[in-house]
Amino acid sequence: MKLNRLKLIPRTGWLFCNVSPANAEDVAQHSFEVATITMFLTDELILEGKKIDSRRAISMAILHDWAEAEVADFPYTALKHLKSSGVKQHMERSALEELLHGMPGKEKKLALWKEYNDKKTCESRLVHAADYLSVLVQAIKYREQGVCSKELDELWKAVKRDLAPYVKEFKIVDKLVRELNTIFSA
Amino acid sequence: MKLNRLKLIPRTGWLFCNVSPANAEDVAQHSFEVATITMFLTDELILEGKKIDSRRAISMAILHDWAEAEVADFPYTALKHLKSSGVKQHMERSALEELLHGMPGKEKKLALWKEYNDKKTCESRLVHAADYLSVLVQAIKYREQGVCSKELDELWKAVKRDLAPYVKEFKIVDKLVRELNTIFSA
Amino acid sequence: MKLNRLKLIPRTGWLFCNVSPANAEDVAQHSFEVATITMFLTDELILEGKKIDSRRAISMAILHDWAEAEVADFPYTALKHLKSSGVKQHMERSALEELLHGMPGKEKKLALWKEYNDKKTCESRLVHAADYLSVLVQAIKYREQGVCSKELDELWKAVKRDLAPYVKEFKIVDKLVRELNTIFSA
Amino acid sequence: MKLNRLKLIPRTGWLFCNVSPANAEDVAQHSFEVATITMFLTDELILEGKKIDSRRAISMAILHDWAEAEVADFPYTALKHLKSSGVKQHMERSALEELLHGMPGKEKKLALWKEYNDKKTCESRLVHAADYLSVLVQAIKYREQGVCSKELDELWKAVKRDLAPYVKEFKIVDKLVRELNTIFSA
Amino acid sequence: MKLNRLKLIPRTGWLFCNVSPANAEDVAQHSFEVATITMFLTDELILEGKKIDSRRAISMAILHDWAEAEVADFPYTALKHLKSSGVKQHMERSALEELLHGMPGKEKKLALWKEYNDKKTCESRLVHAADYLSVLVQAIKYREQGVCSKELDELWKAVKRDLAPYVKEFKIVDKLVRELNTIFSA
Amino acid sequence: MKLNRLKLIPRTGWLFCNVSPANAEDVAQHSFEVATITMFLTDELILEGKKIDSRRAISMAILHDWAEAEVADFPYTALKHLKSSGVKQHMERSALEELLHGMPGKEKKLALWKEYNDKKTCESRLVHAADYLSVLVQAIKYREQGVCSKELDELWKAVKRDLAPYVKEFKIVDKLVRELNTIFSA
Repeated sequence: MKLNRLKLIPRTGWLFCNVSPANAEDVAQHSFEVATITMFLTDELILEGKKIDSRRAISMAILHDWAEAEVADFPYTALKHLKSSGVKQHMERSALEELLHGMPGKEKKLALWKEYNDKKTCESRLVHAADYLSVLVQAIKYREQGVCSKELDELWKAVKRDLAPYVKEFKIVDKLVRELNTIFSA
Repeated sequence: MKLNRLKLIPRTGWLFCNVSPANAEDVAQHSFEVATITMFLTDELILEGKKIDSRRAISMAILHDWAEAEVADFPYTALKHLKSSGVKQHMERSALEELLHGMPGKEKKLALWKEYNDKKTCESRLVHAADYLSVLVQAIKYREQGVCSKELDELWKAVKRDLAPYVKEFKIVDKLVRELNTIFSA
Repeated sequence: MKLNRLKLIPRTGWLFCNVSPANAEDVAQHSFEVATITMFLTDELILEGKKIDSRRAISMAILHDWAEAEVADFPYTALKHLKSSGVKQHMERSALEELLHGMPGKEKKLALWKEYNDKKTCESRLVHAADYLSVLVQAIKYREQGVCSKELDELWKAVKRDLAPYVKEFKIVDKLVRELNTIFSA
Repeated sequence: MKLNRLKLIPRTGWLFCNVSPANAEDVAQHSFEVATITMFLTDELILEGKKIDSRRAISMAILHDWAEAEVADFPYTALKHLKSSGVKQHMERSALEELLHGMPGKEKKLALWKEYNDKKTCESRLVHAADYLSVLVQAIKYREQGVCSKELDELWKAVKRDLAPYVKEFKIVDKLVRELNTIFSA
Repeated sequence: MKLNRLKLIPRTGWLFCNVSPANAEDVAQHSFEVATITMFLTDELILEGKKIDSRRAISMAILHDWAEAEVADFPYTALKHLKSSGVKQHMERSALEELLHGMPGKEKKLALWKEYNDKKTCESRLVHAADYLSVLVQAIKYREQGVCSKELDELWKAVKRDLAPYVKEFKIVDKLVRELNTIFSA
Repeated sequence: MKLNRLKLIPRTGWLFCNVSPANAEDVAQHSFEVATITMFLTDELILEGKKIDSRRAISMAILHDWAEAEVADFPYTALKHLKSSGVKQHMERSALEELLHGMPGKEKKLALWKEYNDKKTCESRLVHAADYLSVLVQAIKYREQGVCSKELDELWKAVKRDLAPYVKEFKIVDKLVRELNTIFSA
C-alpha cells in the first residue's frame, strides 16, 4: 500500500527552514493534524449554526496530499521556477489517479480532491484554512525547539497572507490566527 | 495545541520489536493510516450495499488515540502487569476529557471515543479492523527495512488473532489479511 | 536480553517538552548518568565523613528503571489520570519480577528496587537526588540545543520541588542545585 | 549560503525504497561521492592514455545537483506525471541561475551544468556514469543495512539500464558495474 | 558536566559496520549495559562461592569509558595506524585526569581506571568480559534490525577472540558466549 | 568502497557543541561544502587575476578528509592529550595509504594530501581557508537551529583564530569572514 510511504516523505518547507530531516514533519503527520483541526472547525461552525458537511470536509483533509506518495512534496520555492502554473496540479492529479487505480471509491475520491483544489465549496475552503493553521501550529513547535532561521519568519508571514481570505470568511479562523500569532511573536 | 504532540509519541510496540526511536512510527502517522484505511473500507462496504456512516467511522479513526497526547502509548506488554483491566481505559478517558476541556464538540467527541471502545456499532468495529490492518501494513514495512526480531513475528501473530472477529464479520478484511499475510510470509 | 531494550525507550518527559524522538534521552543513557552522579555524591559524602554503602547506592542507580524494559516510561503527566496511586509501582514490580525470572541474584535485586522506592535508607534517598539532578543536567543540555517550550520550564520547577527534601538532607545536593539553577536561568 | 541546504535534502529515490528520512542519503553526501568516483575514473582513463580534463569533470560532479537547494530532489517516479519532458530541466536551470546570482564565475558554472546535461563531452558522460555508480554503491549499503523492498530491486535494475551506454563507452565502468552487481546479488 | 556528553558520542565500531549515526549505540548506553552485565556476572560468581568485590567491579564498568567525553571513541581500526601502542591509553589517562580535576574521589577513580586497564584483578577482568559481552548483545540487536555487512561478521569474530581468556577463566562467560553465538548464527 | 563510510562519520566537533548525532554534520557533507567553497574562491581569485590551479585545489578539497573513513574524525579537544604532535598526521597518512592501495592514481592522491597538509602552495592554503569557512557556515546553521552552547561560541572563536593567516593572504576570505561574523553575532 503506497500511501504508507507518506510517513517517510518530509515536508520540504521545513527542510528549507533549516529543520533536519530527522526532525522534519512528514506528510502523514501533517494530514492527521489537518484532519484533526478540520474536526474542531466543523464542530465550531455547527455550533454557530452553519450548515457544513463534516464527512466531506474530514475526508478531503485526509486525502488532500495523497498524491505526494508518488511525487513527494513539491517545494513552495520551486513553484516560481515552473513555466506554467498548472504543472503541479496536473502532475498531482495524474499521480493520484495512478494511486487509486482499482481501489474502491476511486471516482468519489478524485472528485473530493478536485473539490479541495477548486476552493468553491465552504468545506474545501475550511480544509484549506485547516491546512494553513496546521503549518502555523507546527512553526510554533519548531520555534519552541529553537529554530530561529529567517526562512521560518518568512514562511510564517507567507502563510498568514495565504490565510487572509479564510480569516475573513470564518470568525473562528480569525480568532485562532490571532492566538497563534501572539504565541509565535512572544 | 496539545494534540500536536502525537507527532512525537512513538508507538511502543515497535520499540519492543527492536525498531529504533528515530525509525519508530508515531501516533499521528498511525492515526492518519487508520483513517485512510477506514475510508477505503467504508467505500468498499457501501459498494457492497451495506449501510455505514462513514463520517462517524472516519472521525473515530482520527480521534481514537488522542488521549495519548497526555498519557503516551501504553505498551501492550504492560497490560498483564496491571491489577485490573479497566485501568488503561479509565486513564485514557480521564486524559481525553482534560484534552477536550473547553473545545467545541467535546461531548460528541467523547461519545465517539466511547463508541469506539464499546465495539457495539458496525462503524466502531470497522475502525478496530482498520487499526489492526494498519499494524500489519507497518510490520511489512519494517520487515522490508530488514527488521527480523522474533518480537515482530509474535506481534504479527497477536494482531492476526485480534483481527479474527473482524475477518469473520467483513469479507474485505478477510481478503486484505490474506493478501498481507502472503507478503509478510514471503 | 530484554534489558538491552532500555536503549530504545525514550523518556516521555522530554517528548512532552517538545523534544523529538530522535533527540530524546533514553532510559539506558539516563540510568548511566544517575549511576555516574551517584558515584560522585557517595564519594563526596565519604569525604565529609558520612557512612554510606556506595555499592548499594550505585547498584540501585543502575537498576532503578529496569522495569521500563517491559512497561516503557510511564509519563509523569499520566499519573493524575490513574484511579489509585499504587498502580504504577505495582505494575513495575510485577514487570521487574518477570524480567529477573531465573536470573542470578533475583531476590537481592528486587530488594534493592524496593529499598529505592521506600526511600527509607540514606542510600536510596541519595539515588533519588541523583535521579532528579540528572534531569536538571539534561534539561540544561536541551536548553543549550535551543528548546524553550513552557513545558521545559514547568518540568524544571517540578523537579526542583521534588528535590527539596534532598537539598535539605545533603549539603552537596544543595550546592549542585544552586549551580545548575544559575546555568539554566542564564 | 543556500547551498548548505543540500545537507538537509534527502534523495527521494531512497525514501520510495522504504528508507527512513533519518537514514536517507542527502544531496551533499551524494555529490561528494560522485566527485570522489569521478576522481578515480578520470585517473584510470588517464592511466589508459585517454585525454580527459579532470578539472571540468570534477567541477561538474560537485555542481550537478546544486539546483536542488532551491527545488529539492524531484522524484524519478514523478517524471511520468509531467506533461512535457523539459519541465524538470527548465525548472532546475532557472533555480540554478537564481542561486548563482551575483556569485563569482556564474556563467562558467552555468556552462558546466549545461555541458553535464547535454552529455556531449566525454567528461560529462563520465560524470553521469559516476552519478549512477554512486547509486549502486549506496544501494549496496542499504542492502547491508537490511533493506529488501522490491522498490530497491527495481531501482537497481533501472540504474543498470541507465548505465548501459557508459558501460559500452568506458571499460572501467563495465568492470565496476560487474563487481557491484556480484556484491548486490550475493 | 562534561560526562553528559557521552550520550552524544557514537561507538565508532558500529558506524564502520554500516550502522547509521541515528541508530548507533552511544557510550552512555554502552556503559549502562556493561554495568548491568557486570551486576549479573558478580552475582553469579558470588553464588558460585567466589570472592568478588562487586562495588569495585560495577564502579569500573561505569567509568571505564569516561575519557571518551574528551577524546571520543577511538576506532578499533585506527589502532594499527598508530606508531606505538601506548598512544591511546596515554591520551585517555590524560583526558580522564582533566575531566576529574577538582571532583570528589579523583584519585580513587583514576586508580579504578588503571586497575581496569591493567587487567590484573579478577574484578577488572570480569568487567572486560562484560564489555565484550555487551558488544555481542548489541551485535545481535543490529542483526535483528537487518544489518548484514561483512564488517559485522568480522567484528563478531574479533570480539569472540578477545573474549577467549575470559571464557577460560569464568564458566558463566563461557556459557553466555555459547548462547549468544547460537542466536547470532541462527 | 570504504570511502562511502564518510557519510556515516559525524564530525566530532559538533557533538562536543551539544549537537545530537542525528543532526551532526558528517564528513561527506563537510567535504562537499569545502569543495563547493573552494570552487567559488578559485573563481574569485581568477577574476582578480591571480594564477591558481583550480583542479588541484578542488581535488584537495574532495580528498582532504578521506583518511577518516579508516580512523574517524579525531577530535580537536583530544589533540592536547597526545604525547607528540605528529601522531594524528602519521596515523592519517598510514590510513590513507591503506585506503588507496591498488586504486588508480594512488601516488598523485597521496601527493595532493601531503601538499594540503604542508600548506606551502597557494592552492593548499586556499583549501584550508575553505575548510574553516565551511565550519563557520555550519556553525551559523546550528545557531539557526537553536544551538547556544558555550562550546559553540568557543569553536567560533577558535576557527576565526585559525583563519587569521588566510584572512591576511586572501581579500575574499577577509570579506567572507566579516559577513559570516555579522550573521553569527546577530
